[in-house]
Amino acid sequence: MMGYVLFNGAIKERYSVNIDIEDRGYQFGDGIYEVVRVYNGRPYLLSEHLERLYESAEKIYMTIPYDRRTLEEQLHELLDKENLPSCNIYIQYTRGIAPRRHEFSKDMEGNLLAYCLPAKRPDDEMEQGVKGVLAEDIRWLRCDIKSISLLGNVLLKQKAKENGGFEAILHRGDIITEGSSSNIWMVKDGIVQTHPADQMILNGITRQRIIALSQQEKIPVREKPFTVSDLLMADEVFLSSTTAEIIPITMVDDRRIGTGKPGPVVRKLQRLLQEDIEKQCGAIR
Amino acid sequence: MMGYVLFNGAIKERYSVNIDIEDRGYQFGDGIYEVVRVYNGRPYLLSEHLERLYESAEKIYMTIPYDRRTLEEQLHELLDKENLPSCNIYIQYTRGIAPRRHEFSKDMEGNLLAYCLPAKRPDDEMEQGVKGVLAEDIRWLRCDIKSISLLGNVLLKQKAKENGGFEAILHRGDIITEGSSSNIWMVKDGIVQTHPADQMILNGITRQRIIALSQQEKIPVREKPFTVSDLLMADEVFLSSTTAEIIPITMVDDRRIGTGKPGPVVRKLQRLLQEDIEKQCGAIR
Repeated sequence: MMGYVLFNGAIKERYSVNIDIEDRGYQFGDGIYEVVRVYNGRPYLLSEHLERLYESAEKIYMTIPYDRRTLEEQLHELLDKENLPSCNIYIQYTRGIAPRRHEFSKDMEGNLLAYCLPAKRPDDEMEQGVKGVLAEDIRWLRCDIKSISLLGNVLLKQKAKENGGFEAILHRGDIITEGSSSNIWMVKDGIVQTHPADQMILNGITRQRIIALSQQEKIPVREKPFTVSDLLMADEVFLSSTTAEIIPITMVDDRRIGTGKPGPVVRKLQRLLQEDIEKQCGAIR
Repeated sequence: MMGYVLFNGAIKERYSVNIDIEDRGYQFGDGIYEVVRVYNGRPYLLSEHLERLYESAEKIYMTIPYDRRTLEEQLHELLDKENLPSCNIYIQYTRGIAPRRHEFSKDMEGNLLAYCLPAKRPDDEMEQGVKGVLAEDIRWLRCDIKSISLLGNVLLKQKAKENGGFEAILHRGDIITEGSSSNIWMVKDGIVQTHPADQMILNGITRQRIIALSQQEKIPVREKPFTVSDLLMADEVFLSSTTAEIIPITMVDDRRIGTGKPGPVVRKLQRLLQEDIEKQCGAIR
């Protein structure tokens, strides 16, 4: 349970904050968000997440009325107040309150909300691997914007869960794009591959970190589209996200990937990411 | 201004109703809605709108915990209380409150919100016609669901307004789908044509009424896709929606449609629709 909420610059008790019925976030999904992972009370890659938050805002013509440094300080204050060693910070910014019509004025005062929710690492899934469920990517064509208009993602995740999966693996036609709340990767002959960061996917912060860490370690990575059959024939498949870190996908629908067990490349990337987290946030095991 | 709000079965003062920060409508755009036009205090095609509301709910696995008749009675009570002769009723139903995660439980208690906003008919636009602005349809592939995840529609409408248009005319590749908050029609050689009611468009209540009225009057109507060039070469183009009724589109971007003035078919359809409204709601001029 969260005790406190950051709302428009002030830290308030959770149940003292309410949303107006005419908030465009509530009537149009007109807003953006971020989720930041906190280890040992310390946020991982916070400035990268905030940078993307401001970029998403700009893409939909919203201006967040604080600079990044101020917001960062407010989030640290919230973290101190909550004192949850292992949690996620959820941050969203909506366009604000106006009588309902689709078009908007560009100088509206938005609503910024942030809070912490206790969360643990998905240890079992990271260790054993999970099942992915293939699903047609029905989402809009601006998946690069981290928007709260998420009904497509919601329905796709639900489909995966109902089919015994951990995540939906989305394909637009024959091309694998990403997961319903993660990026999707495959490994073939030692080469790591994932969809390029265009308007069809969200350029995950963990995705970007994995690419950087791989390059440092001379693991070959390509940002290049691949097909459903490439995926099914891969040696290894995995997903990445802020809350899931790196999770091996050992089954896709009813088909085994590679040996059906997490492979050496995913294990190496998991180690690299964990080392990077520990460098920033301290030992996590 | 609205004075009252229908919220989960009870009529309350507008500012006494607030939304929780963990309402999935606010965090995921996880909800559906309807807009109903009221003339002379009487709602037009209310049962058709409510039928679609329940259908949209079913498509995203939500159950509205009242039957249609009960909701209809509550809306009439709201209308009586507000006493606005010319208004729109906005109705939305969200999946309700839960700690944030994409997947959902199917037995959640949702939140039903409805209120009236004063509105007048767009007389000038209906009389003189408007400009439409072509835009690539970037929305998701389930536009048949009247969902509140509307950021795509919002950005497209904004684009139209910023280019001096009344509405965005959306095309997916070369095929005209619909407007950002309306259906789009063309007339060529006396034949009226609009996109079929599949998953690429919302099957407008006004759209359905226009088709029924045309068939009664032996005006040939086809539900068949048409292209951007078909549209530009049409004799007449128009849009339809609950709040806009039927509005001629006489310009598309910088190109004149037909004579550049509202044509005989759109005028006839406007008359038929107005007669139908007056039959249900009484004289409106």
